[in-house]
Amino acid sequence: MIRSLAVVGTGLIGTSVALAAARRGVTVHLLDASASAVRTAELLGAGTARPPEEPVDLAVLAVPPSKVADVLSEQQVRGLARSYTDVASVKAGPERDVLARAPRPTHFVGGHPLAGRERSGPLAARPDLFQDRVWVLTPSRLTSKPAFDRALDLIGLCGGVPTVMQSGAHDETVALTSHAPHLMASLVAARLGGRSPVSALLVGQGFRDATRIARGEARLWTDIIETNAAEVAGVLTALQTDLTELLTAVQDLSVRDPRNRARSRRNLIGLLERGIAALEALPAPPSGPLAADTAHVDVTITARPGELARLLDTAAGYGAGADTVAAPVTPHGGDGPLVIRFEIPAAEAETLAEKLAAAGWDVVHEDDVRDETEPALVGAPG
Amino acid sequence: MIRSLAVVGTGLIGTSVALAAARRGVTVHLLDASASAVRTAELLGAGTARPPEEPVDLAVLAVPPSKVADVLSEQQVRGLARSYTDVASVKAGPERDVLARAPRPTHFVGGHPLAGRERSGPLAARPDLFQDRVWVLTPSRLTSKPAFDRALDLIGLCGGVPTVMQSGAHDETVALTSHAPHLMASLVAARLGGRSPVSALLVGQGFRDATRIARGEARLWTDIIETNAAEVAGVLTALQTDLTELLTAVQDLSVRDPRNRARSRRNLIGLLERGIAALEALPAPPSGPLAADTAHVDVTITARPGELARLLDTAAGYGAGADTVAAPVTPHGGDGPLVIRFEIPAAEAETLAEKLAAAGWDVVHEDDVRDETEPALVGAPG
Repeated sequence: MIRSLAVVGTGLIGTSVALAAARRGVTVHLLDASASAVRTAELLGAGTARPPEEPVDLAVLAVPPSKVADVLSEQQVRGLARSYTDVASVKAGPERDVLARAPRPTHFVGGHPLAGRERSGPLAARPDLFQDRVWVLTPSRLTSKPAFDRALDLIGLCGGVPTVMQSGAHDETVALTSHAPHLMASLVAARLGGRSPVSALLVGQGFRDATRIARGEARLWTDIIETNAAEVAGVLTALQTDLTELLTAVQDLSVRDPRNRARSRRNLIGLLERGIAALEALPAPPSGPLAADTAHVDVTITARPGELARLLDTAAGYGAGADTVAAPVTPHGGDGPLVIRFEIPAAEAETLAEKLAAAGWDVVHEDDVRDETEPALVGAPG
Repeated sequence: MIRSLAVVGTGLIGTSVALAAARRGVTVHLLDASASAVRTAELLGAGTARPPEEPVDLAVLAVPPSKVADVLSEQQVRGLARSYTDVASVKAGPERDVLARAPRPTHFVGGHPLAGRERSGPLAARPDLFQDRVWVLTPSRLTSKPAFDRALDLIGLCGGVPTVMQSGAHDETVALTSHAPHLMASLVAARLGGRSPVSALLVGQGFRDATRIARGEARLWTDIIETNAAEVAGVLTALQTDLTELLTAVQDLSVRDPRNRARSRRNLIGLLERGIAALEALPAPPSGPLAADTAHVDVTITARPGELARLLDTAAGYGAGADTVAAPVTPHGGDGPLVIRFEIPAAEAETLAEKLAAAGWDVVHEDDVRDETEPALVGAPG
């Protein structure tokens, strides 16, 4: 278990991590370019502004995505910590930069806790911000097991739910679930600007909910969007197509042309129903059970650096990338073997298990998510 | 004060109105095409399924916008009530139809309470749904004062905040604050459909807030959008332009072209900041004070049918349409004169007061919103 932590960047997320760790007895050292941000976090009980006298177990870099690699390099030269992680909501670009120029990329694992508030700054921080929320780790091909384990420790201290992904898959997904929605909300909110007070009277709870995310700090979000620009452009392009189609249908309805009306109405109903269906398919928040009919494939890995990343690459190559959730299940913090559990559609589980085993991985295949007491060996009938 | 009410359409809004009135001692009669919806509302304590033995004071038509005129005509032929209002979120189209074909358009005033939940149906109803929420009334040129007064009574029973608007201005505004945002949220939600369970893991509170309004019932919302299609198309067209501009900026950022990067980054920051500024300009929910530097112009009107609508038209002609909030301030329910208070930017108030007075209206001008004890006569120095 980690006993000492450094938080670099005492904003909302960094201070919340510090608060969570401090209340579990970890010694927390606070760093920030702004002395007043450090002081504020210190006054909140998040830790001490005094620098550590020896390398801490783990440093959390709570800085914007474009700054991660530079700050990591700077702190590694100083010898701040034995290992490092970050909390930026974009992973692939920073990972590339880390691999290219950080002094010790093996000591780093990218991370992203899915938690936040539209308020920012240390005064908005809360120690329970991450409770029961998903926290993604994106180990690179060079990430060492100890670095990974210490990040897992931190997630445990914060009450988060760890999951493992490749950085590219992560970025593609958050473009869809976070970044593009943020921009669409900003477009809607911005349209209200400069209107009369009467418009404000007719703003209801629906509008407020729909635009809340647009309140996020503009410079941080510009950094995030820019760092994930290719994926975000992809989602926006698809939304642009959808919007054009929708606008055509609404225009047809407005001219009341009977020839197009039935079809336009069907298009409109269809869009609304697709949105409803997608929302109803979501698990109950914060993170309920995933789809039914999933099975487990558990793979035991050793402490060799990069092995976890290789496993993820291999599994992705066998088709188990996008549909699969990978999470560590061994109690973390020990030096023993780590078990990665893939949750995968049941129909695909046996194939994945066989292929991994044939490639030399140490695999246990469980047919039924619920059947915890009777793990089946690969190839045994379901 | 109204003593008897009929609610036609016992869905979420109709049943909530019924519950609010019933708990204040009003006799409520429930009607719906679905016998089980009536029975459910009855069991919830919203009123009785027995038809009234004589015309009730007021009937609330809680039916989709496209059905308002037909249901009004049907119920007026039956003699259900002495006056009628509705709760549809689109006003101009139904008003046109009512003026064209209802037996007694003078007995009708359009209305729209700004309240709701994404759940629908009588079981989701709550008597406090409208508490402190804005409720718009859109009297037509034929609406009688008694019909208007009884609708005001109902708003009072429900705890709502009445405001008066022209139906066209209402529709233009809700296209912006409700209808287009709903469709944008649907587009975002629909993009998530058919994705893997991993995408669901990375859905956070931000996405859920941003898409909550998209859960509204598909057929009702199709009816709303279709009835307000011209205004909604206008807002969507503007959003389409904004989205194209945004996409260009994000694409430029993704190719990392230094020539365009600075400008694209500025465009992106600018959009985010405009959204934030528009949201920060909103009053605190549900309805806080409006912009500072507003003054009152109070106009006393008589019971002549259509006088209120003529006043609104006249005020709009003097430039006091879009920037002005008009609300009734006389204790309602009496036969005495009704006072309409215009809240208008202070710089314009004196001019409006003078013009209305010159046109023969009975005007009192107050210089300062807060200065309630010392009303100033028109022309007196601030």
